Amino acid sequence: MLIVMKPNATQKDISCVVEIIEKLGYKAHILPGAATTVVGITGNQGALDSAYFENLSGVAETIRVTKPYKLVTRDWKPNKSVIKVGNAEIGGDELAVIAGPCAVESREQVFKAAEVVAKSGAKFFRGGAFKPRTSPYSFQGKGEEALKLLAEVKEKFGLNIVTEAMDERGVDLVEKYADCIQIGARNMQNFSLLKYVGKSRKPILLKRSMSATLDEFLLAAEYIMAEGNYNVILCERGIRTFSDHARNTLDLSIVPAVQRISHLPIVVDPSHASGKNYMVAPLAKASIAVGADGLLIEVHPFPQKALCDGAQALTPAQYLELYRQIQIMHKIICECEEVAFA
Amino acid sequence: MLIVMKPNATQKDISCVVEIIEKLGYKAHILPGAATTVVGITGNQGALDSAYFENLSGVAETIRVTKPYKLVTRDWKPNKSVIKVGNAEIGGDELAVIAGPCAVESREQVFKAAEVVAKSGAKFFRGGAFKPRTSPYSFQGKGEEALKLLAEVKEKFGLNIVTEAMDERGVDLVEKYADCIQIGARNMQNFSLLKYVGKSRKPILLKRSMSATLDEFLLAAEYIMAEGNYNVILCERGIRTFSDHARNTLDLSIVPAVQRISHLPIVVDPSHASGKNYMVAPLAKASIAVGADGLLIEVHPFPQKALCDGAQALTPAQYLELYRQIQIMHKIICECEEVAFA
Amino acid sequence: MLIVMKPNATQKDISCVVEIIEKLGYKAHILPGAATTVVGITGNQGALDSAYFENLSGVAETIRVTKPYKLVTRDWKPNKSVIKVGNAEIGGDELAVIAGPCAVESREQVFKAAEVVAKSGAKFFRGGAFKPRTSPYSFQGKGEEALKLLAEVKEKFGLNIVTEAMDERGVDLVEKYADCIQIGARNMQNFSLLKYVGKSRKPILLKRSMSATLDEFLLAAEYIMAEGNYNVILCERGIRTFSDHARNTLDLSIVPAVQRISHLPIVVDPSHASGKNYMVAPLAKASIAVGADGLLIEVHPFPQKALCDGAQALTPAQYLELYRQIQIMHKIICECEEVAFA
Amino acid sequence: MLIVMKPNATQKDISCVVEIIEKLGYKAHILPGAATTVVGITGNQGALDSAYFENLSGVAETIRVTKPYKLVTRDWKPNKSVIKVGNAEIGGDELAVIAGPCAVESREQVFKAAEVVAKSGAKFFRGGAFKPRTSPYSFQGKGEEALKLLAEVKEKFGLNIVTEAMDERGVDLVEKYADCIQIGARNMQNFSLLKYVGKSRKPILLKRSMSATLDEFLLAAEYIMAEGNYNVILCERGIRTFSDHARNTLDLSIVPAVQRISHLPIVVDPSHASGKNYMVAPLAKASIAVGADGLLIEVHPFPQKALCDGAQALTPAQYLELYRQIQIMHKIICECEEVAFA
Repeated sequence: MLIVMKPNATQKDISCVVEIIEKLGYKAHILPGAATTVVGITGNQGALDSAYFENLSGVAETIRVTKPYKLVTRDWKPNKSVIKVGNAEIGGDELAVIAGPCAVESREQVFKAAEVVAKSGAKFFRGGAFKPRTSPYSFQGKGEEALKLLAEVKEKFGLNIVTEAMDERGVDLVEKYADCIQIGARNMQNFSLLKYVGKSRKPILLKRSMSATLDEFLLAAEYIMAEGNYNVILCERGIRTFSDHARNTLDLSIVPAVQRISHLPIVVDPSHASGKNYMVAPLAKASIAVGADGLLIEVHPFPQKALCDGAQALTPAQYLELYRQIQIMHKIICECEEVAFA
Repeated sequence: MLIVMKPNATQKDISCVVEIIEKLGYKAHILPGAATTVVGITGNQGALDSAYFENLSGVAETIRVTKPYKLVTRDWKPNKSVIKVGNAEIGGDELAVIAGPCAVESREQVFKAAEVVAKSGAKFFRGGAFKPRTSPYSFQGKGEEALKLLAEVKEKFGLNIVTEAMDERGVDLVEKYADCIQIGARNMQNFSLLKYVGKSRKPILLKRSMSATLDEFLLAAEYIMAEGNYNVILCERGIRTFSDHARNTLDLSIVPAVQRISHLPIVVDPSHASGKNYMVAPLAKASIAVGADGLLIEVHPFPQKALCDGAQALTPAQYLELYRQIQIMHKIICECEEVAFA
Repeated sequence: MLIVMKPNATQKDISCVVEIIEKLGYKAHILPGAATTVVGITGNQGALDSAYFENLSGVAETIRVTKPYKLVTRDWKPNKSVIKVGNAEIGGDELAVIAGPCAVESREQVFKAAEVVAKSGAKFFRGGAFKPRTSPYSFQGKGEEALKLLAEVKEKFGLNIVTEAMDERGVDLVEKYADCIQIGARNMQNFSLLKYVGKSRKPILLKRSMSATLDEFLLAAEYIMAEGNYNVILCERGIRTFSDHARNTLDLSIVPAVQRISHLPIVVDPSHASGKNYMVAPLAKASIAVGADGLLIEVHPFPQKALCDGAQALTPAQYLELYRQIQIMHKIICECEEVAFA
Repeated sequence: MLIVMKPNATQKDISCVVEIIEKLGYKAHILPGAATTVVGITGNQGALDSAYFENLSGVAETIRVTKPYKLVTRDWKPNKSVIKVGNAEIGGDELAVIAGPCAVESREQVFKAAEVVAKSGAKFFRGGAFKPRTSPYSFQGKGEEALKLLAEVKEKFGLNIVTEAMDERGVDLVEKYADCIQIGARNMQNFSLLKYVGKSRKPILLKRSMSATLDEFLLAAEYIMAEGNYNVILCERGIRTFSDHARNTLDLSIVPAVQRISHLPIVVDPSHASGKNYMVAPLAKASIAVGADGLLIEVHPFPQKALCDGAQALTPAQYLELYRQIQIMHKIICECEEVAFA
């Protein structure tokens, strides 16, 4: 249930509402707005009695949320969320480009990649310290050593760091060195981990599972938000289908679908979705055109020597040209969106 | 096998090669090029002896085609095909927009729709006379009566007509009234029908089946081309997956995948793929961005009264604004493509 | 709508009801039962006025059918249909085993296969005369020549012949020589062909499309039945999924799902579903256990020499042992079913 | 790489081989056999030099494993594994039936269910203490309180307890109270958790992810085994497809596919796969027929009052009758399997 406060509700009114919610054993989620404050209630089994809350001082109305998710919706927060990641933003006017190699391999590799990313104008750097690999015998990432290199990249190039954590220890470490914690597709329904990062103060980049429906994707975000961390960025990275010309099938229709229901920003990862170098640029442009808030792009100084997913990484030259093109595309798309469709 | 003739090969040399191929019981496909002519051989079971052909007068070399398809490939025809449809083209520099209602319902409806389509600047009009419906009790289309209305539209608005045929009788009728025969997704592996339209002189718009892999899609085109009709336009319209926020999952990665292997143009149908009005514009723009040669867009003067698929049809105002936007997008994409990726 | 006649309704009452239905432009489907006759109405757009029919002489009641299908349902026909195919039955107490090679290749091959099938005790022989092949350059079947061989098999071994038709000419030929017309998975939504076989007097074996939902499958059967041919046997043969250890994913849960809604018998084809010899026996046994009315099994005298799908065909020895085992299984399953679940 | 010791190799020879492997930084997995011992090496990046090992005392030969998995294969262990779970076994001659409610709700519910399960003759009891729920607002299980009830059930009815853990704390608790740790489908690629349970001394029931291929499934088991826990039981529970008549599509062909490659036992969960009460019995029987080593079956004393997944739970009467039937089925299947297929 959402409780909409009157424009003239006092801080005391709000505190009183929150106190009552917590006394009932539920959780209160305060969303201060320009004109009014909305308080979301989660944790209740079954419907609440709206009359009970409507009589409280300062309450304008209550809204019953019939969807399985609450905090991710535009019911709770009508305007799009702009998520602060380090010294930059995702979900705002600027396109968010998160670029870098699949895995952090060496100081040389990561610094060469970061130089290219910084040169392009992108504000976010990605690189894996902990790699979820299908085989236990594949390269698993360099762990904290890699995180320290990423911290150096941040220091030297001013790039904000996005990197994956696979468990609680990993979250603690990533939190220490990076600006944004990535939850990978295979952990999208690792509910214990979602709850854990829901208590982090760092923003979360949540990748869609290869077999997640829209509802399951949004509910995974809701898991994080229900714990109090409202800074979630969604990421489409391809789904499992019979179609075999790309590694996964990039499901771009989820971008308008998410935007219709949710205030959360959504970015797209064409590199992992396709798994093929030659598809990255066209799919990246399509992602911008469909309205995504940003992109994850793999770029590697020497793709053919990459320890992981080299076949999909762009060369520095390819990446720089693509960056130039998507900026043009993004500008056009923003202009288009200013014309309201009937 | 492909037989590449020498630049100075005579017409007689070519005829001699063809004659030998046909004597062996195979089929010869002549592709005259600016400098050299290529002759494709189909119908052989197992590999042919290349030495046999290489010794013939005027033959430069032979190329063994190891892929399951031959005529659809850039091996046979390195340059992109531009398909003539009525008085316009698909696959050339201009974006091909094929717009109109799902089904032809009445003179008023079809003329109102055509007026909008003509006004936009689009060159192609679509509208179903024969409708493949999941239920035998749903509206099945108005048949020849509808085709006659489409012929009137062509006459009055100068639009080129694209419409579906579901069987041989339908093909004969569509051939008589329209400019391009559409083979629907459900008939993509109706091999008898593919062979039949392979003998038509009209171009074929071939929609991808909901469960077709890239190879199966290209082989369906090969069925048509093997009969001598080389004017095939491919169309992506969404595949069957578990993803349930749209009617089907638009698989845009097939556009670069097709373009890498094949010379055939490929267009995208975001209306049928999504089944939802609000998704059509973003997916249409994504289709242009990924490099499609054109779009199929449903527009209906009164979507809420449509006898078929009304939920996805754009209103005239939505369509006109979308048309304006995709022209801008297309211009940008063309400029981008002029920059060669390393 | 279904019109249930009174037990004492006269033939004249029934004729009168039919006449009225036809005058209204609809189609009447008479189902005589032991106690009462039911008349189904199809062809109406929108709901009919039940009061209109309820006042007619001999009418007991009318039932509105809200499902998209009518004649396939147990509403129209509560008891399971037993379909007569040649001199045997599918859907009755006996398990229907339809065995034989993928394609008819030669007299020797087809007679050797038939000898094995007859020896096992199976009553149905299958073998393709017209083969739907993904590539236009693959072996396409021997056509009428093959049908003549099948007719000889029928004559000599007393086996009932099931074979596929891909178009109207094929249907006419198969009707002439065989006992049951198979509609392949790729033609399951070839609605023109469905209507055509709906006018045939021969029973139809309808294979599920690789991307068909339960509703689409039943509606394809409804297309045939709406034309008056009520002798439809459904066949599950695997669906398209990401799962890659078998050619397709056999979806056995469709067997109880069909049986709950429909009176039509359903058989399973583990050979095409799996595409692998070693999976055929376990999946065949699973199909019996789940309650299927029969099996399609590929058996070839020399699988390694088969022109088509050799990898999945059983050897004669494998087939005979499997036949023995599934008879035991079927007996057990029948005994199990006699115990009513609470 | 696998190192096969000579029949007369001494314990010292084996220890020496293990020592060398560990010195190289790899992990040794000793598999003592009746005649010879096999030592598996994991942890190496790239191929090892076989000559190096072949010269050691007591070594008969080395086998290079080209598959991505090693310890799960029949190369390492040719005979089927029989896994000890509490005082019973999974993978042996007896069918393993693991039955019980989806979630532990109350002492009354769990004892009533256990009484039915014990009465049937089944040896394993299941019931969720930690429930992975799509929504953060759904019932999440009763945690340690539930585990204590399960321990009482074990005490009173002599049933062996199988229950899910979702994170490391959960694993520690489940290890304390139960006999087998279940890893749910959503955690199948939670690699940190797999490694953690790889260090447990309790057997692991590993459920297939809804989007896992055969290779991914086996590699998840390999993750556990590579840490030294060789007691893994695989479980098929349905995959994500477009097919919508059941909750998931039960992919029974994975049973023979697993058995061909791997020595690990595999059980099937028809309750979660179908999500529908009426499908459980036919799919359970099909699972036995296809060769599964056991079943997970949901039974609830009052399905209509279940806090979770009630629609799929069997009533006690349904369960008891099904148990009777599958025992008969299993006996028949075992007899069938004694006849070797040619």
